[in-house]
Amino acid sequence: MASTQKFFFLLLSSFAIIRMASAADPDITSDFVIPSNVTAPVDGNFFTFTGFRALVGAPLPPNFKVTKASMAEFPALNGQSVSLAVLEFPAGTTNPPHTHPRSAELLFLIQGSLQVGFVDTTNKLFSQTLQAGDMFVFPKGLVHFQYNADAQKPAISVSAFGSASAGTVSLPTTLFTTSIDDTILAKAFKTDVATIQALKAGLAPKP
Amino acid sequence: MASTQKFFFLLLSSFAIIRMASAADPDITSDFVIPSNVTAPVDGNFFTFTGFRALVGAPLPPNFKVTKASMAEFPALNGQSVSLAVLEFPAGTTNPPHTHPRSAELLFLIQGSLQVGFVDTTNKLFSQTLQAGDMFVFPKGLVHFQYNADAQKPAISVSAFGSASAGTVSLPTTLFTTSIDDTILAKAFKTDVATIQALKAGLAPKP
Amino acid sequence: MASTQKFFFLLLSSFAIIRMASAADPDITSDFVIPSNVTAPVDGNFFTFTGFRALVGAPLPPNFKVTKASMAEFPALNGQSVSLAVLEFPAGTTNPPHTHPRSAELLFLIQGSLQVGFVDTTNKLFSQTLQAGDMFVFPKGLVHFQYNADAQKPAISVSAFGSASAGTVSLPTTLFTTSIDDTILAKAFKTDVATIQALKAGLAPKP
Amino acid sequence: MASTQKFFFLLLSSFAIIRMASAADPDITSDFVIPSNVTAPVDGNFFTFTGFRALVGAPLPPNFKVTKASMAEFPALNGQSVSLAVLEFPAGTTNPPHTHPRSAELLFLIQGSLQVGFVDTTNKLFSQTLQAGDMFVFPKGLVHFQYNADAQKPAISVSAFGSASAGTVSLPTTLFTTSIDDTILAKAFKTDVATIQALKAGLAPKP
Amino acid sequence: MASTQKFFFLLLSSFAIIRMASAADPDITSDFVIPSNVTAPVDGNFFTFTGFRALVGAPLPPNFKVTKASMAEFPALNGQSVSLAVLEFPAGTTNPPHTHPRSAELLFLIQGSLQVGFVDTTNKLFSQTLQAGDMFVFPKGLVHFQYNADAQKPAISVSAFGSASAGTVSLPTTLFTTSIDDTILAKAFKTDVATIQALKAGLAPKP
Amino acid sequence: MASTQKFFFLLLSSFAIIRMASAADPDITSDFVIPSNVTAPVDGNFFTFTGFRALVGAPLPPNFKVTKASMAEFPALNGQSVSLAVLEFPAGTTNPPHTHPRSAELLFLIQGSLQVGFVDTTNKLFSQTLQAGDMFVFPKGLVHFQYNADAQKPAISVSAFGSASAGTVSLPTTLFTTSIDDTILAKAFKTDVATIQALKAGLAPKP
Repeated sequence: MASTQKFFFLLLSSFAIIRMASAADPDITSDFVIPSNVTAPVDGNFFTFTGFRALVGAPLPPNFKVTKASMAEFPALNGQSVSLAVLEFPAGTTNPPHTHPRSAELLFLIQGSLQVGFVDTTNKLFSQTLQAGDMFVFPKGLVHFQYNADAQKPAISVSAFGSASAGTVSLPTTLFTTSIDDTILAKAFKTDVATIQALKAGLAPKP
Repeated sequence: MASTQKFFFLLLSSFAIIRMASAADPDITSDFVIPSNVTAPVDGNFFTFTGFRALVGAPLPPNFKVTKASMAEFPALNGQSVSLAVLEFPAGTTNPPHTHPRSAELLFLIQGSLQVGFVDTTNKLFSQTLQAGDMFVFPKGLVHFQYNADAQKPAISVSAFGSASAGTVSLPTTLFTTSIDDTILAKAFKTDVATIQALKAGLAPKP
Repeated sequence: MASTQKFFFLLLSSFAIIRMASAADPDITSDFVIPSNVTAPVDGNFFTFTGFRALVGAPLPPNFKVTKASMAEFPALNGQSVSLAVLEFPAGTTNPPHTHPRSAELLFLIQGSLQVGFVDTTNKLFSQTLQAGDMFVFPKGLVHFQYNADAQKPAISVSAFGSASAGTVSLPTTLFTTSIDDTILAKAFKTDVATIQALKAGLAPKP
Repeated sequence: MASTQKFFFLLLSSFAIIRMASAADPDITSDFVIPSNVTAPVDGNFFTFTGFRALVGAPLPPNFKVTKASMAEFPALNGQSVSLAVLEFPAGTTNPPHTHPRSAELLFLIQGSLQVGFVDTTNKLFSQTLQAGDMFVFPKGLVHFQYNADAQKPAISVSAFGSASAGTVSLPTTLFTTSIDDTILAKAFKTDVATIQALKAGLAPKP
Repeated sequence: MASTQKFFFLLLSSFAIIRMASAADPDITSDFVIPSNVTAPVDGNFFTFTGFRALVGAPLPPNFKVTKASMAEFPALNGQSVSLAVLEFPAGTTNPPHTHPRSAELLFLIQGSLQVGFVDTTNKLFSQTLQAGDMFVFPKGLVHFQYNADAQKPAISVSAFGSASAGTVSLPTTLFTTSIDDTILAKAFKTDVATIQALKAGLAPKP
Repeated sequence: MASTQKFFFLLLSSFAIIRMASAADPDITSDFVIPSNVTAPVDGNFFTFTGFRALVGAPLPPNFKVTKASMAEFPALNGQSVSLAVLEFPAGTTNPPHTHPRSAELLFLIQGSLQVGFVDTTNKLFSQTLQAGDMFVFPKGLVHFQYNADAQKPAISVSAFGSASAGTVSLPTTLFTTSIDDTILAKAFKTDVATIQALKAGLAPKP
């Protein structure tokens, strides 16, 4: 077997196994799950995630920003059914309507104030204005959003999820940046193709 | 206890229990679940749903129409983790982008042709044009849609769900008919308030 | 490594991984699961199953026939907890008593009439005669059967399952074509060995 | 409210709640589940089951006999996903082919020898002759049986289940003592109505 | 029905139902679960928890303190499989070894530094010293602890759980304040009864 | 590829896959799970465990002894959510306080008498003295213990678990033989470092 082939083989093999591993958020029958590409015995470092250190004391980003610690960033979460994210809202910014296909979200506002809301499957809107220290739960799979209406002060929240891989479906980009046919969207939103094209243009990534 | 009170008490009590019952799609530890308001022994009728008989031989509706057999319509499905729906697409109609928060959907096209698609959490569109006899699976919790592009012929499908209560979140109505603040939507969709208001007007229920 | 060995190694490796993948019907932590032997990026075709096209407009089979779209035939169903089957009953035919070890069945009769029934764990029979458009739910793991009593007209149903791999245990063949000892069966069915042997002969595959 | 009505109301209400409670074998979010009709604080007795004491030192029954400790007999098992049974096989007796719809069975032979077997969904028989101290696992939902072929010595086993309510579907009684139509059974077992009626007569409860 | 009876009845009935509701952390088949004692339609307040407001800007407690937002404090979490807690560690304080029977814990250190560790089922200790911004995951059901070794600075963390009701088993109090027999404990810890009694005295609640 | 490398590769590859396989106790979508290193078709032997034969008629061990049949010892249990253990208690011996992170335990006392107890998450002790034939259920994840107080007679029990891999966390060894810092333990148990060191010395494995 040539070297290149060997490398490819190893890569393919690992990839396949990892993909399988990522196919389940069930109760596990071991204490934890070690990825197949980790061959040395694990120690406390495996269970530590330092990816949020950079957030401490850093200046606020110019736009809304979410930083995640899910299974993709922190493999030790595999099989543990939990993950976290930090959400930073500069004044006047919004986290657009979205869903998490695999978990509810429990948002804990640690600074600022925040308008939050979700819509249930009977099409009813539940909304609230939170102050620092408040929590709000967005039920599993429902469309929700957050908005920092304050013109001056930023808002920061920590969000917990009951899945190691909650996933995010952002609705503006899902609907208007993925080549869904203009005619279908125009019919669905009961508008004309020109409006759809304008929305698509506004949401298209800037070159 | 006065009669009115008694009635209210009974109602409240039943309601509470039924609501609890509807709070779980887990494996059950009995063969089936009988609603608390059914007091006579059940027979074969309890396991039979006749609500789709009217569809047989009926003329096609003028607009897209979904008819469901989920736990709400067919209580024997409680605890059985399965439900069905029939989707009727007159020529040129669409089932707008939506998600099912609690199940994947397996669509079986029994008549006509149909454009279908879904977007995954990496924002990639997967689409297909189906012919009669084809199936397509929309993974759990992801945004999907169907469109009968044919100018003449209707399309009919049977869709299966792996939950007795999959739920539906229709995105046009969820986003634009539930009083989410115009400013939030304008920021989220990177457009102006006037466009949001026009979309809302187009989707508002006709009086 | 010799070519033969390499091939064997690859085969063994893939087989092992696929077998693992097929060991779970849990909630998944990815949008979908791609089999390890699929190395190209997937598109809409992966989520499409065309195996039922042949049923459209085809003449009815001479005997009862079930056509399945489960994880074995349609790999995209892995992790989506749903599958479908089409059941065709020529006049006077039966689907013998059987169980599905991993799912309830929701049967939707789209043509003809059909006698259906199941027996619960208290040994009670629940039966019904369905007409076109009716549904019947067979609870998880219980023995059930269907019979088209009509002497002329065929019956056709679509059945939904809340598992990608419901499995089928056909009782006549499980009991009488698998070499279970005649003495055990005679004792179990409180009959004599001759009767058991006659039943076995009747059910044995024709040479 | 008249006394009789009150009693009926209370009864109905409790019944409904208990039935709901018995509808789930999921992970629980409390340490244990107390039935709604238990109003005093529970102590160690609630977690103790004495129903098997009578088996200790008792003479063997004349026929095969199963004694269960499942949720029905021992309510503290609710939500704990485990139960046990003791199986007593006098010489030459059999536990007829059956399934457990909600659990695998792990049989531990503590006395005698025992022939055991199960058939998988590909119609393959797996069988074994066990000696005292051996275990055998019957996978979830599959048809299995046990037979004490010894002409003299009894066999005794303890069986564990991974559900508080595994359920049992005994195939001879399910098939031939529940009024399933003779014609359907004759067609299903590819035999004549007379044979079916003879089997039914043999299995019918003696008056 | 006399007033007293009515009150007792209502109480009993509600209690029973709530207890049932609290018996499951499964996927739910509704968007959310409303407790049976809530009779008015719910709005955004139901999904908001203000119990942590008091923590904002408050002086640090003199001892280690945990403040929880689980299903007991925040009923809207029922069925959403997620909860949060804030842990405050004054200088030199410890959160004694404990387990959560129903969830892993994902700890996010937002201030100070913290020594953390857990022991797996092979009796191996995994430990780490965290700095602000770090996360550490304690796998489901394993013994773990935290210790602020700093002599001056407090530490504060936010912990996420993948269950609405993770539960806590504090080992010092579980072992030495619950009347487990001194002899049993002395044998278990391979020490003498006097040492056990001294440990019990030290941990006993102060009068 | 050199021979050594080949061997290492095979080993690594198998190890990774097996580790993945052991990461889930979910419902399976196949009848059973065959480990990836088993390449021949399986027969009845695969489902048989003979590891307890040696217990039959053997003299009682000098100390408390647990013999397990879990997934590690009996691979056919993978995916079947059940396992068993035999516990032998010579006179006066104890099974020290411990938890099973992944299952409740249903203990069936088949000989002798036994003191048992567990502590719930509200810190309440539930205890009982069992006689032969009694069962006791230790709820999932809670601290429990057993003690044979009889000065003469041994006790033997069979314990069932609702997981193929329940796991055991023995508290004396977890707390005092795993190098947790003396200071942390002293603070946690509100005692001095000398007492902790004495406990550690008593529990340390004898050289």
